[in-house]
Amino acid sequence: MRQANLPLCGEHFLAWFGRHVERTIRRYEMLKPGDRLLVAVSGGKDSVALLHVLFRLSGEMGFELASVTLDLGIRGNSYSARSLEVARDVARALGVEHHEISVEERYGFTLDEAIRATRRPPCSTCGLIKRYSLADFAREMGFDALATGHTLDDISRFLLAAYISGSLAEAIRLTPTVPPGLPGLPRLIKPFYETYEEHIRAYVDILGLDYLPDGCPYAPTAPSDRYRAFLDQVEKESPGLKHAMVRNFIKHIRPALLAHLGRRLPPLRPCSECGMPSSGQICAFCRLKEKVLKAKGKS
Amino acid sequence: MRQANLPLCGEHFLAWFGRHVERTIRRYEMLKPGDRLLVAVSGGKDSVALLHVLFRLSGEMGFELASVTLDLGIRGNSYSARSLEVARDVARALGVEHHEISVEERYGFTLDEAIRATRRPPCSTCGLIKRYSLADFAREMGFDALATGHTLDDISRFLLAAYISGSLAEAIRLTPTVPPGLPGLPRLIKPFYETYEEHIRAYVDILGLDYLPDGCPYAPTAPSDRYRAFLDQVEKESPGLKHAMVRNFIKHIRPALLAHLGRRLPPLRPCSECGMPSSGQICAFCRLKEKVLKAKGKS
Repeated sequence: MRQANLPLCGEHFLAWFGRHVERTIRRYEMLKPGDRLLVAVSGGKDSVALLHVLFRLSGEMGFELASVTLDLGIRGNSYSARSLEVARDVARALGVEHHEISVEERYGFTLDEAIRATRRPPCSTCGLIKRYSLADFAREMGFDALATGHTLDDISRFLLAAYISGSLAEAIRLTPTVPPGLPGLPRLIKPFYETYEEHIRAYVDILGLDYLPDGCPYAPTAPSDRYRAFLDQVEKESPGLKHAMVRNFIKHIRPALLAHLGRRLPPLRPCSECGMPSSGQICAFCRLKEKVLKAKGKS
Repeated sequence: MRQANLPLCGEHFLAWFGRHVERTIRRYEMLKPGDRLLVAVSGGKDSVALLHVLFRLSGEMGFELASVTLDLGIRGNSYSARSLEVARDVARALGVEHHEISVEERYGFTLDEAIRATRRPPCSTCGLIKRYSLADFAREMGFDALATGHTLDDISRFLLAAYISGSLAEAIRLTPTVPPGLPGLPRLIKPFYETYEEHIRAYVDILGLDYLPDGCPYAPTAPSDRYRAFLDQVEKESPGLKHAMVRNFIKHIRPALLAHLGRRLPPLRPCSECGMPSSGQICAFCRLKEKVLKAKGKS
């Protein structure tokens, strides 16, 4: 078997992939021996590969591993039910301690209800709920770090959007490792920060892993994927360009922006409702929750 | 007549366009009363519009105006000959003092010869020769400023390429006004820095101005215009986005990069051959010239 960019057989590709992710983890000081890591698994290709490769690295790198899947309450296409099932099977096959969090049981509403109750784009509401629930659960359980499956392709797309629209405060947060906003919270890590989706696909294919195909019922409402198509074309013309773009951000642009703008960004403080980090008195999640519960009460 | 973004008749559009360019000139301190300005005119749409609007502003803003056209020696499509003719007619119609510089007479070789003698992409060699010859001539004639017709669309494209490829030292130079690299040289100004080509097209159409249609014989070798197509699409979806991108660069990103990287950029010094600003002992133009003249001597 020959991987697109690498003349390696399947076995050597798997070895290369593991070393590559390990290098990313070490380069950005994501984990240290003894850490308890929680891996967010949606059941999609990227998070299934993430759980697998981190499981393989946990022994030699000396960290402990558990996985978690959110039940967001997406009914369309039975999406949440299928997501939970795939993730459960993957974790069981590896013998990894697995958790399931029902957003409805924990906070009193589903993503479907939140989307109906607000005018925000669905992907934005979903992102807020996911980030909050995962960090909240990791804090409750005392995990040191929380890993997500964001890929090099994701990061380069976010960066491009931030450069064009000028959301520099958002760009500054696009780092491989985000230290906890307040004590007691997990650091957020992205072990696929420098990993192409193309390689992740090869990894799951070679291992023959099952994963949830695309099919989120809200996908058609997602922001235009023109950015993705453009970067894919540019990458095709100049292989390695997405990687150069992301490395260059980390090495040059981000330090410059941070030094220049960092002092002007508001410091985080505990939300007066829930204690999670917030830039204002009440955090964005608690404001969303209040709005959704009020709308539910009315109907 | 209704302009795409502005419900203005032709007369009001012309007035708006002049005020818009005047605001750009004032905002970026491009010109002051009494300045002697040299305008580079290739005969294309943008530079013809530039000469016209600057001529109209010169009276009330109190600067003097002359124009210049380079004879680069491009034989294909009789490109240089037609460029010289169109520019000469435009300047004559306005009664503006006009200069013509033959690169061959002044430096001993044509662009066609330079392209044959080097492996650089044609557009890169052309850019080097144009920047050098115009600044050299402006210095010789004692002009205070040199204006070029770079548009908002050009700048946003250059910026996007710099963000993606990481040519940050090049990005830093993409400013509306570039102070002289050494005393005695003109400052470089881009009065269309915040002007959409769409508006420039409307301006020349309403005035019924003649200009050289595209047709440079080296155009097919130009770098992919995927960047242009992408930005045009993004602009279409979110009107004003190119402008926001450029303003954001000037306001936030460039100051950050400059503070961070500026100290590491090599200072300019006079080229030991010609005295023009150079980052090394001999400037890029003198190195090109030596190479081309040597290649000509051999053939």
